[in-house]
Amino acid sequence: MTDAIPGFYAVVPAGGAGTRLWPLSRAGAPKFLHDLTGSGRTLLQGTVDRLLPLTGPGGVLVVTGARHQAAVQEQLPEVRPQDVLAEPSPRDSMAAIGLAAAVLEQRHGDVVLGSFAADQVIDGAQEFGRAVREGVEAARAGHVVTVGIAATGPSTAFGYVRSGQPLGIAGAPSVRHALGFTEKPDAETAAAYLATGEYRWNAGMFIVRARTLLDHLAAQLPALHDGLREIAAVWDAPERDEVLARVWPTLTRIAIDHAIAEPVAAAGGVAMVPGDFTWDDVGDFASLAELLPEAPEGDGARTLGEEALVLRIDATGALVVPSSGRAVTVIGVPDAVVVDTPDALLVTTRACAQQVKGGVDGWRARGRDDLL
Amino acid sequence: MTDAIPGFYAVVPAGGAGTRLWPLSRAGAPKFLHDLTGSGRTLLQGTVDRLLPLTGPGGVLVVTGARHQAAVQEQLPEVRPQDVLAEPSPRDSMAAIGLAAAVLEQRHGDVVLGSFAADQVIDGAQEFGRAVREGVEAARAGHVVTVGIAATGPSTAFGYVRSGQPLGIAGAPSVRHALGFTEKPDAETAAAYLATGEYRWNAGMFIVRARTLLDHLAAQLPALHDGLREIAAVWDAPERDEVLARVWPTLTRIAIDHAIAEPVAAAGGVAMVPGDFTWDDVGDFASLAELLPEAPEGDGARTLGEEALVLRIDATGALVVPSSGRAVTVIGVPDAVVVDTPDALLVTTRACAQQVKGGVDGWRARGRDDLL
Repeated sequence: MTDAIPGFYAVVPAGGAGTRLWPLSRAGAPKFLHDLTGSGRTLLQGTVDRLLPLTGPGGVLVVTGARHQAAVQEQLPEVRPQDVLAEPSPRDSMAAIGLAAAVLEQRHGDVVLGSFAADQVIDGAQEFGRAVREGVEAARAGHVVTVGIAATGPSTAFGYVRSGQPLGIAGAPSVRHALGFTEKPDAETAAAYLATGEYRWNAGMFIVRARTLLDHLAAQLPALHDGLREIAAVWDAPERDEVLARVWPTLTRIAIDHAIAEPVAAAGGVAMVPGDFTWDDVGDFASLAELLPEAPEGDGARTLGEEALVLRIDATGALVVPSSGRAVTVIGVPDAVVVDTPDALLVTTRACAQQVKGGVDGWRARGRDDLL
Repeated sequence: MTDAIPGFYAVVPAGGAGTRLWPLSRAGAPKFLHDLTGSGRTLLQGTVDRLLPLTGPGGVLVVTGARHQAAVQEQLPEVRPQDVLAEPSPRDSMAAIGLAAAVLEQRHGDVVLGSFAADQVIDGAQEFGRAVREGVEAARAGHVVTVGIAATGPSTAFGYVRSGQPLGIAGAPSVRHALGFTEKPDAETAAAYLATGEYRWNAGMFIVRARTLLDHLAAQLPALHDGLREIAAVWDAPERDEVLARVWPTLTRIAIDHAIAEPVAAAGGVAMVPGDFTWDDVGDFASLAELLPEAPEGDGARTLGEEALVLRIDATGALVVPSSGRAVTVIGVPDAVVVDTPDALLVTTRACAQQVKGGVDGWRARGRDDLL
């Protein structure tokens, strides 16, 4: 179980601003470039650490924005420069993953690829590896495979995937038919989902043969498919910049969920492999607080950074991020969220964690793009 | 009414750390050195601005700690260097005011002095002047005169003075007997006080002839009296440093309220002049918030500093002090108090304003004296 999987490549889309983690996450230094768990590794590094044993050396491709290329390469010395694909501008996840699939097919033929976002936190490497191995077997059999995460509660922050009958694929005993995907539900709906035993969280992970993916794309969005194939054909050639400059701006912006997963699931082509590991997309500060270990003082307090810089009085459950080096004192604000950075300070509560995006919008409206 | 009062000198004790206004107020830059109202003048400057028209030029004496002498002189170019008395170490208000009285008597004979703390905010200069003028007349008649402030509510943050019959002093028609002083009461007691119509807030202002004060001191605390007289005798002579070094450390630490006001009131020697101006001692951030004008956005929000640095969302009544230049965002914390300074950040609420001292104690316990 610890060997690399032959013919398997991992694609890591490293994009997304992580706006609800502002001001820790910024446009210039988004979420995936940060160590949000105090592990000593950034989310991007943690993602690659998890995947390299499954692919073997040279088996991880990162797709990121041109402005983050240098930072990504600096954080990942074990990933070769040619395996960091830089997008000239954001074109959403279908273009990112489709480009990686087309480049992999160009370089290596009809391999299996697995796409895993750079900004998720997973605990349980062995179970993760087992799920991926089964997923690769199901992908070889022609399915688009998604990973369904065992829900720990009726979350309204995630989408769900509904599973059907086992598919009986050799080497992939737990893989089932995926009947469909749902958007983030309300609390009542989420509870009803879990009561059926058929629903799991949709982590946005996909495992699929490069050609299967490109064939589905050709059927659903032929122009996007043709554009990506045209770019991939010259990716490792001198014409890359010219073709990128001409074609990339014309590509359709669409998420892989809408472009492929949903229509293919409706046609019966998606499988689900259950993943019984701990997973979180660290979507906001409430979620981040849950991932951190409790501070020495107890009371549900959490610190991301140097504990000596934080003083809490009557502030049970308060999350403090003292990342400017200043002393932070919180008095009488239970469940406070205080994020202290050199140029911007956020004060909110866990319950308001989803509203943080409004702060970013507010500063943008005032023309303070330097803070975004 | 706008002329200076002949033979009247003002004493401004500029001491006290203002711990409950930390981290704005620090041991090295206490409350009175700050502009806490956004007026463009510090509390100390505002105090002297109010007094100079009543004394005339050269009539204000400031008593402060040696470590603040330079800052005080820099803020008060209109006060001559010899009129800033520097205490080698804190010896509480009786020593500070007693020293000023003895130095004034040494320099000018038996003048009337009025003592007004450097860290109070007053609105209503004309009414303040009227009260002082009447107070000076009562002082000339031999009384220790205190100013009783018209209470705007049953505050538990202030002490009270109870008034008796009018004294019928010429030129001081509103001056009454002062029956006694009370410590800060509980809410019920405060309400009962106000219901009688006899009680006013004790602002800690005293107007008295220098010799009257020194005679009371000689009767109550002869050693302290003798020490202060010995120091004052050489204050303007070469021996000052030698005598200060020898005598000052021996002086009794006691507040003027306990040393003089209370025992003399009990003996019938204290008068009260009513002051119907707006007064506050800016004791904590809740009090500070009330003194500031509402921010343009309304909702009870207050900003001490640059409005453009503050973004509030669902944070009605929040007080923000953006004094480090960083952008401050407050989301979903009504009545928040956020004080942002270059090396320390405080997050609390108006309701917890009195607990701020606990934060200072906490950092002291951790050995972070640099923050105090």
